[in-house]
Amino acid sequence: MSVTAPAGFTAAGVSARLKASGKLDLGLLLSDRPAMAGGLFTTNLFAAAPVVLDKRRLANGSARAIVANSGQANAGTGREGMEDAEAITAAVAAVLGIDDADVLSCSTGVIGPRIDVERAADGVADAAARLSIGGGRDFATAIRTTDKVTKETVVHGDGFTVGGCAKGAGMIAPDLATLLVFLTTDAVAPSPTVVRHTLRHGAAPVWNSVTVDGCTSTNDTVLLLANGASGVTPAPEALVEAVGAACHDLARQIVADAEGAETTLIVQVEGAATDGDAQKVGRSVAGSMLVKTAIFGKDPNPGRIIQAVGSSGAHFEPERVEATLGGVLVVEAGRIPPSFDPEKCTEAMREKEVVIRIYLGEGLGSATAFGCDLGYEYVRINGEYTT
Amino acid sequence: MSVTAPAGFTAAGVSARLKASGKLDLGLLLSDRPAMAGGLFTTNLFAAAPVVLDKRRLANGSARAIVANSGQANAGTGREGMEDAEAITAAVAAVLGIDDADVLSCSTGVIGPRIDVERAADGVADAAARLSIGGGRDFATAIRTTDKVTKETVVHGDGFTVGGCAKGAGMIAPDLATLLVFLTTDAVAPSPTVVRHTLRHGAAPVWNSVTVDGCTSTNDTVLLLANGASGVTPAPEALVEAVGAACHDLARQIVADAEGAETTLIVQVEGAATDGDAQKVGRSVAGSMLVKTAIFGKDPNPGRIIQAVGSSGAHFEPERVEATLGGVLVVEAGRIPPSFDPEKCTEAMREKEVVIRIYLGEGLGSATAFGCDLGYEYVRINGEYTT
Repeated sequence: MSVTAPAGFTAAGVSARLKASGKLDLGLLLSDRPAMAGGLFTTNLFAAAPVVLDKRRLANGSARAIVANSGQANAGTGREGMEDAEAITAAVAAVLGIDDADVLSCSTGVIGPRIDVERAADGVADAAARLSIGGGRDFATAIRTTDKVTKETVVHGDGFTVGGCAKGAGMIAPDLATLLVFLTTDAVAPSPTVVRHTLRHGAAPVWNSVTVDGCTSTNDTVLLLANGASGVTPAPEALVEAVGAACHDLARQIVADAEGAETTLIVQVEGAATDGDAQKVGRSVAGSMLVKTAIFGKDPNPGRIIQAVGSSGAHFEPERVEATLGGVLVVEAGRIPPSFDPEKCTEAMREKEVVIRIYLGEGLGSATAFGCDLGYEYVRINGEYTT
Repeated sequence: MSVTAPAGFTAAGVSARLKASGKLDLGLLLSDRPAMAGGLFTTNLFAAAPVVLDKRRLANGSARAIVANSGQANAGTGREGMEDAEAITAAVAAVLGIDDADVLSCSTGVIGPRIDVERAADGVADAAARLSIGGGRDFATAIRTTDKVTKETVVHGDGFTVGGCAKGAGMIAPDLATLLVFLTTDAVAPSPTVVRHTLRHGAAPVWNSVTVDGCTSTNDTVLLLANGASGVTPAPEALVEAVGAACHDLARQIVADAEGAETTLIVQVEGAATDGDAQKVGRSVAGSMLVKTAIFGKDPNPGRIIQAVGSSGAHFEPERVEATLGGVLVVEAGRIPPSFDPEKCTEAMREKEVVIRIYLGEGLGSATAFGCDLGYEYVRINGEYTT
């Protein structure tokens, strides 16, 4: 169900032969009525054509449909890439009988090559004919690249529903992968401002804390469509909470499926001066190549956590810092305690999901970061892609 | 010779049994007269005890001796760590008959464990007895951890000499390694301000552009002693140039010896709005896990260069960007050119040193960044250290 779980949304996923493999590679999502819409986009200056197009079309805060393809990222494609994105969304508008300006677009795949627009248009016609309430799964499947599993979520609010799906092996390998997140809700969002508030406070903190390799894709996009089909207008914070829960669920699925990863790393930071500082510390630890390789090798080396916390850019007094790994005390009063037990620490790293908790002793700021280990398989996937 | 190449400097390196292996692990460097001195230090908040000590002692801008050990980083060691660093420098001052305040200290090795001060003091006495003009090589050897080779340099200025040595498998694995750089010169530096100016403009641009894994150590230190023994007072820019050349030479040696690296990556950025922007782009490309794994796997994937340039934080118009890899055109007018030849690109990556040139088309800012590939060996070294 995922993106089609909220009332008023249908979807489909088809093979448009954009991928040589013949797997599903084009997804279409439609709201049966105009929806309030907003997005979060990559900060990469080489933003892909669909990112530029979506930003422009979301200026009015509404949308009806989303077309997404895998196989080509439509980035590094110049002016022709923008023409291709416009042509594909025009095909969607024509077949659905809606306005071009109400169609959004996302692409993921290899940077450089252009999308075969003719094949994409045929795929759009095929997908439009297959739109259904049960089509959320196919949509979520059609956006996969190196993802091993489909990532979907449904969150039930008080009288409304939030659905979502995502793709991405964790912001890793942006030329193969990319982070795309599609969120739908049948809640009434009285204005585009409510959608933007929900994205900023419900979605952004989660997606800015997911890291696999620290590489910001040219295509990263998070879209939220609120079509009001439930007739329920939740309090702004209830919508933020439901969307946040959906994002949390998807983020966990993303890092668990990250390319080459064996272990999920969750970094919970508390006691920071601000939430922003907590996020800096979380990202620094979850993104550290040294922490990641230590987790992979089950190497009981708390010096690497100290290193990553200290160079995060957050403000704190080192003497107050405490940390645990899988419940084992690894930092106390800013130092590695004489009682530190390497064997217990190694044992704790054998879990499928390793939780590092860090307390800074400065204030009430907190954040959670999502990452994964770094092993041989990551190097193989990213070093031997074309060979 | 290295640090003892300039007149008035002697050095030694001994085994103080701080390392279980019995290899050289304690180095001593002495200027026969007071020297103007300055340093560049890690920005990590968990700065090691010797970093804190050196910063304090360099406030007056002069020094006579440096004691450096490998085996233990003396970081994450709390108040006791500071007492240990003070005790070791006191031993140096006593045996050399100089003031405690004129002795600087550096440590590199595992974070957490304390240094055995008794053994270190014995080592200091031993080293003091062996101080010689030919001792630069032993000093440079005693500071090695996972370094496979000793890194030394000598640059001859107009009537003065700059010597240097460094250790570090490239800012990689700060619990095993760390970047330590020792620079000496017999040039007359009329004031500590000249030394600081030389470090800021000759050394900092180089050492801020070396990256292996983006991890800032708790112990990173660059020290420069100018004892004036040549009697020559070079123009400030001549000293900057000579020290810059020495740092350049050492930086190349560092990345060539980076843990697990097979290929050196040199990123030359030109046409940036400012030198700072050029440095951002260089660091982003040289530090990108995706570029690094592509270099390792000889994967002809210019999308990864676009991704890293675009997310560097530098300001530019994407449409003006050009890039070459080993002389092969990979980005033109901000896109991957239709004429791009993957086979030529792969061929270019088979070199021991791969040069990526990036032109931003904004201004006259330029910078060079130094990095390396990321392969299985990095993962093995950093994942299996204790197992």
